[in-house]
Amino acid sequence: MSSPTITHAPKGLEGVVATTSSICYIDGDKGVLAYRGIDIHELADHSNFEEVCYLLWFGKLPSRTELKQLRERLAEERKLDASIYHRMQLVPKHALPMDVLRTMVSTLSFFDPEEKSNDRDANVHKAIRLTSQIAMIVAAYDRIRKGLPVIEPDRSLSHAANFLWMLTGKQPSTTAERAFDIALILHADHELNASTFAARVTAATLSDMHSATTSAIGALKGPLHGGANEAVFRILEQIDASGADPVEYVKGMLAQKKKVPGFGHRVYHTEDPRATHLRKMSEDLGKSSGQAKWFEISHKIEEFVKADKKLNANVDFYSASTYHTLGIDVDLFTPVFAVSRISGWTAHVIEQLDDNRLIRPRADYVGPAYPNQYVSISNR
Amino acid sequence: MSSPTITHAPKGLEGVVATTSSICYIDGDKGVLAYRGIDIHELADHSNFEEVCYLLWFGKLPSRTELKQLRERLAEERKLDASIYHRMQLVPKHALPMDVLRTMVSTLSFFDPEEKSNDRDANVHKAIRLTSQIAMIVAAYDRIRKGLPVIEPDRSLSHAANFLWMLTGKQPSTTAERAFDIALILHADHELNASTFAARVTAATLSDMHSATTSAIGALKGPLHGGANEAVFRILEQIDASGADPVEYVKGMLAQKKKVPGFGHRVYHTEDPRATHLRKMSEDLGKSSGQAKWFEISHKIEEFVKADKKLNANVDFYSASTYHTLGIDVDLFTPVFAVSRISGWTAHVIEQLDDNRLIRPRADYVGPAYPNQYVSISNR
Repeated sequence: MSSPTITHAPKGLEGVVATTSSICYIDGDKGVLAYRGIDIHELADHSNFEEVCYLLWFGKLPSRTELKQLRERLAEERKLDASIYHRMQLVPKHALPMDVLRTMVSTLSFFDPEEKSNDRDANVHKAIRLTSQIAMIVAAYDRIRKGLPVIEPDRSLSHAANFLWMLTGKQPSTTAERAFDIALILHADHELNASTFAARVTAATLSDMHSATTSAIGALKGPLHGGANEAVFRILEQIDASGADPVEYVKGMLAQKKKVPGFGHRVYHTEDPRATHLRKMSEDLGKSSGQAKWFEISHKIEEFVKADKKLNANVDFYSASTYHTLGIDVDLFTPVFAVSRISGWTAHVIEQLDDNRLIRPRADYVGPAYPNQYVSISNR
Repeated sequence: MSSPTITHAPKGLEGVVATTSSICYIDGDKGVLAYRGIDIHELADHSNFEEVCYLLWFGKLPSRTELKQLRERLAEERKLDASIYHRMQLVPKHALPMDVLRTMVSTLSFFDPEEKSNDRDANVHKAIRLTSQIAMIVAAYDRIRKGLPVIEPDRSLSHAANFLWMLTGKQPSTTAERAFDIALILHADHELNASTFAARVTAATLSDMHSATTSAIGALKGPLHGGANEAVFRILEQIDASGADPVEYVKGMLAQKKKVPGFGHRVYHTEDPRATHLRKMSEDLGKSSGQAKWFEISHKIEEFVKADKKLNANVDFYSASTYHTLGIDVDLFTPVFAVSRISGWTAHVIEQLDDNRLIRPRADYVGPAYPNQYVSISNR
């Protein structure tokens, strides 16, 4: 057997097609995003997160009965082993919420009734369970770290409403529920983004769904990926607290060669279609809640960066002000991204395993020339 | 800005050069493996695991003083927060050791004194800490699950000897210590294997060392990667227990279209140079411990598969009988792989961050044609 042809990929595998996939369609030049071919704008306007989960996992829109059944399954799976709460109580208060989420999702494997099965049915069940459980963990941990009582899930509520209920202990308004539901739809999948790719690399060794999801959460944490929305809000906060002019503040960042988070995208060369909805949501929620300042600061930054750097706002930019206005703490923004993206991660793992091959690229060796002599320690 | 050129990679990124690296040199046609250009045979014959760690992390062999200092640092870091032991006590007895290791390494982030720093110095410190801590977790958890008292680390011992001491509560023989030390050297790094690639994909979002290591452990778990040595020993056990002829047993597997674990390699098209050492170690340890049967069964399988399928034994094949003869339980074989590979994973994360770019490939969309109409629920 001879070696395969070696091809050199651009750095970061930019523009390299690593697999086929029937989940997510993106046209980066036209600003199109679609799940299973259905445009994200249609889904944001008419669908809901549970339906989008069905679409991602099963490849088609559900019938009324199928949607009802999935809603029931997701609601039934709103339960965590008591030891998960205990373990969250043990977490030191300074721990980062993404580290806690990654650890707790890894821990969930101990309690999964299909822990040792990696077949398709088991993985669909795990997708449903993890979607319910991750939302519960993010909400419950926020209360635990604040010394507040954990709120029991309400199985009569939608996924979006139950999350806000468990986080705040208050029934969300119809506006808040719908806004969060749309945010979940918009973040559900995005083709081979870094966290999804980490999940597929992990799953492709025939490891398991919990391992793949844990890898994805670890990758999402980084500020070049999910961590960007947190970085955006830290800037909005500093501008607000200092009373600085948003444009002058950003000019200062650029003068120091700092990147402005929430702008530009590896794939989109036009407006990120998710930003269109999040901008509107940020504005509407800001007005209705009397907190218009976050949208206003954001909008000034967007206008300037677009004019000056020719960079468009991405999904992270307006999710920052949107989440803040929904009452979500800034260090939960990335965990909340995971509350949605678990639907896409699990869909991609299932697809990977349907036609698996180990993902194992090569490196171009540029170190000391072989053979580099081993010098005995007595001669060093 | 226009789209980058799109290139279609072979499935599983086979033969695709995803990055440059100065850590590991492999010539798959000639059966060469070298760390920083130094041949693996030289290292197996003359080096030790601590020196190999230095080589991987710092790019050169250490002076006597540098080696002494690294040994001291690794020994000092043989400590775990008390809550790590408590959390291991809480693990249900049926949990898989790789799930436990993945979870505990993720948990270690809560207690890392440089948790919030991702700079080079902090990551070198984390590499040292994680190398000491992972060995302790694997050994301590094995005793906890068996209801045995945890053995305190012995800071006067080598990394290899301390692991065997903490696992068994007995001072290892010189032969056992050296055999395990060589096994650690052989498994320390292997270029962009799937777990290392998962670590680099995770680190490249500018996430952190614990996230990257957690991803790597999740990927290593799979039977197409680290899980293979466990699968090999399950077969040896079945052959031994049933009294079957090894060749007939393997013929039966092949007749059922089953893959024989421990054979073939994505990169090597000749003998895996690590297998050369592990075969000898398996034979020598078997003879000296009066357990020659595991080597003998293995050798018969190897001869047959090589003749019949033209496949060479890989690193996993003889590590199975070697680890068993060293008194390591079969479901610890893959965690023990991690005890070594942590050195390579951390070296790769440090290298990735030295010249980082987000690793974000594309997928070729093959799903329902865009635009796929959104049909209202009332019409479904």
